[in-house]
Amino acid sequence: MSLPDTRGARMRRSTTADQIKELILTRDLKPGDPLPTEAELCETLDVSRSSVREAIRTLSTLDIVNVRHGHGTYVGAMSLDPMVQALVFRGVLSPDGSLEALREVVEVRLALDLAMAERVVEGAQTVDESELRGLVAEMVDKAERGEMFLEADRSFHTQLFGVIGNHLAQQLVGAFWDVHTAVIPQLGLAIPADIHDTARAHGDMLDAALNGDVDAYRRAVVEHYRPIQRSLSAVTR
Amino acid sequence: MSLPDTRGARMRRSTTADQIKELILTRDLKPGDPLPTEAELCETLDVSRSSVREAIRTLSTLDIVNVRHGHGTYVGAMSLDPMVQALVFRGVLSPDGSLEALREVVEVRLALDLAMAERVVEGAQTVDESELRGLVAEMVDKAERGEMFLEADRSFHTQLFGVIGNHLAQQLVGAFWDVHTAVIPQLGLAIPADIHDTARAHGDMLDAALNGDVDAYRRAVVEHYRPIQRSLSAVTR
Repeated sequence: MSLPDTRGARMRRSTTADQIKELILTRDLKPGDPLPTEAELCETLDVSRSSVREAIRTLSTLDIVNVRHGHGTYVGAMSLDPMVQALVFRGVLSPDGSLEALREVVEVRLALDLAMAERVVEGAQTVDESELRGLVAEMVDKAERGEMFLEADRSFHTQLFGVIGNHLAQQLVGAFWDVHTAVIPQLGLAIPADIHDTARAHGDMLDAALNGDVDAYRRAVVEHYRPIQRSLSAVTR
Repeated sequence: MSLPDTRGARMRRSTTADQIKELILTRDLKPGDPLPTEAELCETLDVSRSSVREAIRTLSTLDIVNVRHGHGTYVGAMSLDPMVQALVFRGVLSPDGSLEALREVVEVRLALDLAMAERVVEGAQTVDESELRGLVAEMVDKAERGEMFLEADRSFHTQLFGVIGNHLAQQLVGAFWDVHTAVIPQLGLAIPADIHDTARAHGDMLDAALNGDVDAYRRAVVEHYRPIQRSLSAVTR
């Protein structure tokens, strides 16, 4: 079995990395399974120890393997973390780039939220709402004390997207959220006065989803992004 | 200036990589600009040559730097290629995973296309249509000869998304397209009989966009994904 060629070929110079990928496939290893030892890989693939080390490092950067120091090397979760890293860094490359990158992320987040609205509302009919309610309460509470609520915000969005049963969409939401959160401090934005609006908008999103009201959900999603969009245009002016 | 912490921290063990990122920021280097030489990096960052090499390898895997062998090292394009690699590999991890991953990719592509419909139609009013027309003609032509038209298909989608002025959204479309293309051969799907429908649907999308008809554009987008969705459910059954 050979791996498909991709446009990412520029990063695939290391054939040892490809061989290790093939070994993962042919041995039918799953995320969390241990990889063979370094010595075994050298022998099986007939390559030097330094080639194996370099390949493992590359695969680790891509989250295809996971090196637990002192424990061994395992098949990784293949998350979108590498994308987050590159996007965050692109986002902070310059003050201008930062704003532009954040604006793009907000746009894509909004688009995904609106596009998945029906699926989220449908899935929300069978969800245990208590945890989501708890997260909304936490956000409202913190907003009242003038505090940010990044963790609760992220959990709310990824959990809500969890109901649609699309792992990729859920991961994307988490990844964009991370980029969003990492880039904001670079903008030097103060905690916005309308942080309460953002907190409450999450409650409106949840209510609408639980009530099976797709239109109200879409409206709440749009409201939810207004404070950050206002901050972005204030900085631009 | 310090880089924001992200959830991708697991991959950020290498502080030399972080130092090189900071150097890119503080020297205000842009994609395509040359990095300092290895010797200069060793001296500036006060680290060993092997640390610099390892860091450069990591950053290269993430497309944050670009090593042109025999030429030098440059600031990279920070593309979504690392994400494509991880997703493709997750997609081919098992026959079941392959189908499931492709289904998720198709779902997210459809969602993005629908969500960006208004922006695409708006942007299409000022676009030079000749190249897009040429791509549609090429797809219809190849479909008639029973050939696949992956390159033209990808170019069509990324160019059409180019009109909305969101670099991230355009990159995402290209990235998902690559995952899609790379995973399909793994499914062992024959060239579908309804390949003509897919080719023609691109023409309908373009006509609708140029005519400023958002509803017709959305309908054409939905039609455009039907053949692949049919293939996916046929394989599942």
